[in-house]
Amino acid sequence: MKVYNTLTKQKEEFVPLRDGEVRMYVCGPTVYDYTHLGHARTYIAFDVIRRYLEHKGYTVLMVMNFTDIDDKIIRRANETGEDPNELAEKFMHFFLEDMEALKVKPADVYPRVTEHIKDIIEFVKKLEEKGYAYEALDGVYFEVRKFKDYGKLSKVNLEEIVAGARVEPGEGKKNPEDFALWKKAKPGEPKWESPWGEGRPGWHIECSTMSTKYLGEQFDIHGGGNDLIFPHHENEIAQTEACTGKEWVKYWLHTGFVMVKGEKMSKSLGNFVTIRELLERYSPEVIRFFVLQRHYRSPLDYTEEGIQHAKNNLERLYNTIENIRIALEKAEIPFKWNKEEFELYEAIRKAKEKFYEAMDDDFNMAEAMKPIFEVANAVNKYLAEVEKPKESVLRKALEFFQMVGEIFGLFEEYFKESKEESKEKELIELLIQIRAELRKQKNYALADEIRAKLREMGIQLEDTPQGTIWKRIKV
Amino acid sequence: MKVYNTLTKQKEEFVPLRDGEVRMYVCGPTVYDYTHLGHARTYIAFDVIRRYLEHKGYTVLMVMNFTDIDDKIIRRANETGEDPNELAEKFMHFFLEDMEALKVKPADVYPRVTEHIKDIIEFVKKLEEKGYAYEALDGVYFEVRKFKDYGKLSKVNLEEIVAGARVEPGEGKKNPEDFALWKKAKPGEPKWESPWGEGRPGWHIECSTMSTKYLGEQFDIHGGGNDLIFPHHENEIAQTEACTGKEWVKYWLHTGFVMVKGEKMSKSLGNFVTIRELLERYSPEVIRFFVLQRHYRSPLDYTEEGIQHAKNNLERLYNTIENIRIALEKAEIPFKWNKEEFELYEAIRKAKEKFYEAMDDDFNMAEAMKPIFEVANAVNKYLAEVEKPKESVLRKALEFFQMVGEIFGLFEEYFKESKEESKEKELIELLIQIRAELRKQKNYALADEIRAKLREMGIQLEDTPQGTIWKRIKV
Repeated sequence: MKVYNTLTKQKEEFVPLRDGEVRMYVCGPTVYDYTHLGHARTYIAFDVIRRYLEHKGYTVLMVMNFTDIDDKIIRRANETGEDPNELAEKFMHFFLEDMEALKVKPADVYPRVTEHIKDIIEFVKKLEEKGYAYEALDGVYFEVRKFKDYGKLSKVNLEEIVAGARVEPGEGKKNPEDFALWKKAKPGEPKWESPWGEGRPGWHIECSTMSTKYLGEQFDIHGGGNDLIFPHHENEIAQTEACTGKEWVKYWLHTGFVMVKGEKMSKSLGNFVTIRELLERYSPEVIRFFVLQRHYRSPLDYTEEGIQHAKNNLERLYNTIENIRIALEKAEIPFKWNKEEFELYEAIRKAKEKFYEAMDDDFNMAEAMKPIFEVANAVNKYLAEVEKPKESVLRKALEFFQMVGEIFGLFEEYFKESKEESKEKELIELLIQIRAELRKQKNYALADEIRAKLREMGIQLEDTPQGTIWKRIKV
Repeated sequence: MKVYNTLTKQKEEFVPLRDGEVRMYVCGPTVYDYTHLGHARTYIAFDVIRRYLEHKGYTVLMVMNFTDIDDKIIRRANETGEDPNELAEKFMHFFLEDMEALKVKPADVYPRVTEHIKDIIEFVKKLEEKGYAYEALDGVYFEVRKFKDYGKLSKVNLEEIVAGARVEPGEGKKNPEDFALWKKAKPGEPKWESPWGEGRPGWHIECSTMSTKYLGEQFDIHGGGNDLIFPHHENEIAQTEACTGKEWVKYWLHTGFVMVKGEKMSKSLGNFVTIRELLERYSPEVIRFFVLQRHYRSPLDYTEEGIQHAKNNLERLYNTIENIRIALEKAEIPFKWNKEEFELYEAIRKAKEKFYEAMDDDFNMAEAMKPIFEVANAVNKYLAEVEKPKESVLRKALEFFQMVGEIFGLFEEYFKESKEESKEKELIELLIQIRAELRKQKNYALADEIRAKLREMGIQLEDTPQGTIWKRIKV
């Protein structure tokens, strides 16, 4: 398996630091507003990367932070008159809801800055001790020029960025390129005690602190959107490697922008569409499918036609899966295979190989889509040609769709139990309710019939003082 | 991954002939009686081998034959007065039922001898043309001494077996060690036309013919019980390699016997227990679990205590999974991990590695059981220690059980949708029935309530002249 490493600007063989495990960190959101498609694209891409690694048998330890205290949050809270903590809390939960709606598997740890202030202070103290950090009037700064490898990820040239003023402002810093590790509190701002007085962490330091806390001083993958390469990830490297003296992250992975009419989708340009808005018009799987049709590193054009096109394509696949399900009901035990079965089998076998080849080549999801349609075509051809389809080849096709569905987060309706199960509960509750109503109406015959029939299905009703409850029994 | 190859008597690196695909053939049953635990052990073992290979990402093409015409079938049919074809048909379906009950994944092709007579005749003709076969009074024979490699699998010594008379009888054969490819029909026996007059195939030739028909002249795995090594598999090799001139099967895998008080469980000794009998007392998963606790190549002692022990152990795992499910309902979003979460995560990570190591070492299922219990212990310890468990580590544990469950064919109740779905349909049907009854009783209010509540759940009822039907709608 090969992955493109932003650090080396080439595809490299993927060999995790520990056998059988991949430790990955993806920069999470600053929770001050709704998630838009630009963010979702990044999280869906890393979700598929994570699912694919899990599919390959790796234990994946996935950490994503929440920046729940930050300039942007304070500014927004001031605008709306809310408490910054409450604002952050609210948008953090909206984010989690959006991710759940989009079927992005939850991270193993979602460290919040506000719950890791102590760890961050420790980290800054170490940098100070090692001579990389200094205290100024308004905070503690990282002295960029002391870290010799600065620029190794983004290949920025310090002189140029200083000249171009692409640096954070700060009252007391020695050099324009230095960045804040700790910001001393201004009146009314949320603040924590520290050796440098009351204040709060700078932005970059949280990721160095929390990633190494959960993933160790060296780990496999660090990811995020392209726009984080500089300065965020560059600064993270400087902080972490200065602190530990070790090479930090093995593979840096970055996602491309979502583009709207040639411009990056972003809060500041106001050309964004939130996940909530999109979900009113399209299903989560349509959104995933739309995103996955482009390579995760390439820009993705957001247009209505594009997403409609994705919807149509996805529906073709749904129809194929539905056709398989229907055909399976009348399918035969395969006592013999004819030419048609061999052909379908070969189509599936080759498609599976192509799928793996594409995914093994820097998670090329766009390329991996193609064999899915090849299987769909082969299945539909088979079903058109054959009067009595054979169970085994149909089942192989279904397993293929299930496999790619699990990796891409698609076709859930066809393979997942969760929804069915919750509907089962709802249906039982409805029957209990109808039975209670019948008993009130003194229609005991029908009420008892409901109870008896449910019992036959292995569902026992019990009338308790708190109402009727049910449990499963063996029948 | 390493597998023990009976052919070379050592563990070898497993490298399939075609990238990404494993073609395997497992000798199926002669269908003249019920399946007993001795057979089931073999089929469960190969089922797990196949599932593991699929888990590893291979496309597995699995073929298992049905010997549906044979001396044993004819003899049994004569005893019971049944038609041999009907007898075979009946026990073939019983076998398929037993395998389904035991959750053995169906083969991709189940070639039946009686549907491949033409192919078999072609194969015998080729052997005749190449000088390996000759016609005698009572049939066509394979001339063993002409095949120089005879004995390479079983390491038998021809002189010894001839002296020991471990050979099939036959009227016209030139040498005692020769075996029948085609048996001329005796009066009243089932028969087919052939260049050698009416008759039927010998036993061994079917496997050579049908395996190469579906898997090609060279394929990866050929398996079966230990007792098939000689003469069956030895003869298969002789026939096939004589015919094609190529090395045939890359890896030969054989399962150990099921033992009862020191003797092999077998039809002839009458010390067998059928799958049907066992299934009356134990669940399919208990039987699988019992079988999988021993290495597939080792003898497996069948005792009541042994199977009861397996049942208890399996129930411990069920309880753990149930505990996880219950704990998940009150589990917290992991904004932070403490010592306990790290410990549980590490236990799962290491267990997963051990599981893979064991399975990669000649499918050592017995060894692979151990880490499953390690995870169970770690989970129970975690749940005892922690007041507010974190969702992510519990979900990782659950995913681990699901993964090993899919490979071993266990824990289906906890992870599979199929049963839930059929119950959903039953529940809807019951509601439709109650509604019809209510309408008869002119209780339209309650009848309409059922319809309205179902609609809210996305289930629309439609009254047609043929009765009420239902379909899913978007809500």
